[in-house]
Amino acid sequence: MNDLRKIVADLHAELVRYNLVVWTAGNVSGRVPGEDLFVIKPSGVSYDELTPENMVVCDLDGNLVEGEHSPSSDTAAHAYVYRNMPDVGGVVHTHSTYASAWAARGEAIPCVLTAMADEFGGEIPVGPFALIGDDSIGQGIVQTLKGHRSKAVLMQNHGVFSIGKDAKAAVKAAVMCEDVARTVHVARQLGDPLPIAQDDIDRLYDRYQNVYGQRSPR
Amino acid sequence: MNDLRKIVADLHAELVRYNLVVWTAGNVSGRVPGEDLFVIKPSGVSYDELTPENMVVCDLDGNLVEGEHSPSSDTAAHAYVYRNMPDVGGVVHTHSTYASAWAARGEAIPCVLTAMADEFGGEIPVGPFALIGDDSIGQGIVQTLKGHRSKAVLMQNHGVFSIGKDAKAAVKAAVMCEDVARTVHVARQLGDPLPIAQDDIDRLYDRYQNVYGQRSPR
Amino acid sequence: MNDLRKIVADLHAELVRYNLVVWTAGNVSGRVPGEDLFVIKPSGVSYDELTPENMVVCDLDGNLVEGEHSPSSDTAAHAYVYRNMPDVGGVVHTHSTYASAWAARGEAIPCVLTAMADEFGGEIPVGPFALIGDDSIGQGIVQTLKGHRSKAVLMQNHGVFSIGKDAKAAVKAAVMCEDVARTVHVARQLGDPLPIAQDDIDRLYDRYQNVYGQRSPR
Amino acid sequence: MNDLRKIVADLHAELVRYNLVVWTAGNVSGRVPGEDLFVIKPSGVSYDELTPENMVVCDLDGNLVEGEHSPSSDTAAHAYVYRNMPDVGGVVHTHSTYASAWAARGEAIPCVLTAMADEFGGEIPVGPFALIGDDSIGQGIVQTLKGHRSKAVLMQNHGVFSIGKDAKAAVKAAVMCEDVARTVHVARQLGDPLPIAQDDIDRLYDRYQNVYGQRSPR
Repeated sequence: MNDLRKIVADLHAELVRYNLVVWTAGNVSGRVPGEDLFVIKPSGVSYDELTPENMVVCDLDGNLVEGEHSPSSDTAAHAYVYRNMPDVGGVVHTHSTYASAWAARGEAIPCVLTAMADEFGGEIPVGPFALIGDDSIGQGIVQTLKGHRSKAVLMQNHGVFSIGKDAKAAVKAAVMCEDVARTVHVARQLGDPLPIAQDDIDRLYDRYQNVYGQRSPR
Repeated sequence: MNDLRKIVADLHAELVRYNLVVWTAGNVSGRVPGEDLFVIKPSGVSYDELTPENMVVCDLDGNLVEGEHSPSSDTAAHAYVYRNMPDVGGVVHTHSTYASAWAARGEAIPCVLTAMADEFGGEIPVGPFALIGDDSIGQGIVQTLKGHRSKAVLMQNHGVFSIGKDAKAAVKAAVMCEDVARTVHVARQLGDPLPIAQDDIDRLYDRYQNVYGQRSPR
Repeated sequence: MNDLRKIVADLHAELVRYNLVVWTAGNVSGRVPGEDLFVIKPSGVSYDELTPENMVVCDLDGNLVEGEHSPSSDTAAHAYVYRNMPDVGGVVHTHSTYASAWAARGEAIPCVLTAMADEFGGEIPVGPFALIGDDSIGQGIVQTLKGHRSKAVLMQNHGVFSIGKDAKAAVKAAVMCEDVARTVHVARQLGDPLPIAQDDIDRLYDRYQNVYGQRSPR
Repeated sequence: MNDLRKIVADLHAELVRYNLVVWTAGNVSGRVPGEDLFVIKPSGVSYDELTPENMVVCDLDGNLVEGEHSPSSDTAAHAYVYRNMPDVGGVVHTHSTYASAWAARGEAIPCVLTAMADEFGGEIPVGPFALIGDDSIGQGIVQTLKGHRSKAVLMQNHGVFSIGKDAKAAVKAAVMCEDVARTVHVARQLGDPLPIAQDDIDRLYDRYQNVYGQRSPR
């Protein structure tokens, strides 16, 4: 648990490094392996002040289990995802600029970059407009991402939620989401990006998910 | 007073961190609790050289009360706000890029992001064109923001003034103003952002002002 | 001389800080008070490696007088400005993105921001297309800026040259030039910025040149 | 070899400094002088963790010769370039935003900046769409760049490959490619950049390749 607190606390620095967040917006959580718990950012605490110690632990209904601070105001959405997507081990939320701009128009990001085919396997989809305060946001995330290759969803007029097998993978998806949101935006400003054939997207996605990086040999 | 000098001096680093200012432009001030005084940045001093000691103290007519440097050239505007808005404890001024671009067109930023509904409760309004040198800028700020939910105003052809219950809250409003100015700009570059219903804006604003962060229990 | 070497070397860090330069592009020079000499960046040396010691000294014909490295490849342009504008004590050259984009279109930046009226007193003008290798660039700078309020010129298809009473003032003009180039660009992307009346521009310029900052009392 | 390991490891910091890469994307390689080997980034290792020791060495068929990690997933493309372009001593690959946006539209970057004439001698060309996994990408790079002045190619829907006499020169080309891709993009957003005459491009290219920087005397 202490390890996971440190991992989750440290991963917030990646949101800062890649300019995905301002002030106290944005949050990372990670599921505690083998338990119905997750570690998440405290609410309204600045990124400079995050430590393993002030991370908070919640159960899968979003109730505070451990910690002196209130959990992130987005905790209900994280909890809903963990309850309903058992393979998800990490969740990230940001209002990163370019992704949120696509979300403000309610427009999916088309897959016109090989890096996007690699990571997301196709377009990054839009989820419904949903108010904070109950399970609406969580439901919107799960409905959109369940059975979808994409690990990120653009919640309409809101921002990005991304998921992964662990917190680090979810952060990577959040970083890549903003990166491709920006590049495709810039491409579209001066004309129409060329499409990538579905077959090629499928091949790229399959290869990247199974071969890339320092993974176990096959 | 020494505490406030340090708080105000340190908050200028947030303007630098979020790229809201270049060179010596921009300034933060904070009202001295219980006195008709405020602490403000000295004029023409670089951000690297700001210390608690070189902050200056002015009365609510903008006269220098304490300090070896001249007060910021925007002091008259800050003073006018403190004189006329007794609940305001902090004022910030920047020429941040995206907000100033909306200001150059004299165009309010429409509320198409939930984060904007949270923080500003609706659009960020435009104030009049006003010359520096008398109370015109201060009057423009107060006329625009008095009775308005928004804590930031886009002064036409000029830049942003933001207010808050204290200097930190005013800095947060300046940071969030640029963040939403940029995201809505980017959204608009490729089409029309989807509107958010007024009812939903009201609910988001009410919740955020009363629930978010590590506030007193309720 | 050693002081000026240090000042000029250190000022290059401002070009880096404000993202006005990449790799070894860009340069700052400063006139040696009371002598027909100026200190300038060595050619092709990275910004990390600049020291007071490796700055080079040239005469007003651009000949190397002191230094182990070759002077900047833009030395002839700096020298021409010093020869022909005796009040100029500093010159800066950059390819900063937004200013160079206006330069690529051969389009002056219109004065639609009060900060631009303050610093430049009106539009930032375009200078002619000129090849490096003789006095063409220097002539283009001097012809454009002599008798003009602006301390910066957008050399067509090339970049920015800025001048000032000393090297620091020229760096400030380069920083402000990119800042207003970017803000006006962003404003123009979504419509037409509102004009500022010439009378108001004149008043702002006069006030800023005579009152702003920690200057001598008047 | 140890020197080259350090050079290649350190050069990755330039990709980070100039924001050409996110997460583990992007890679630099350098040919081992006098041997049919090159040093390249390991696959899926973060930029913070790169050291001379974890760089890997491959032969010109892309087979791992030395190193505990797998070589970059782009190794086959690097190897193909070294096999087929004997004068190339360094190769760099990035998905830098603006260059990749031109690549997504399959559009060459026109030469409308003197800095672009200097470094690239004309437009930056587009290479074919090619899938990772065999020699397709390498062939696309070589077919496009062989006999072309440009040291960078925009691989369609993918990103940039740049080459140079050594790894540092290839990194410089990658940095300059993104810089001009961004400036020309920004210029194009508000109209048509002015063309530079072919004669002038030729003169600039010739001069820059032969005179600039702290080169050997002539």
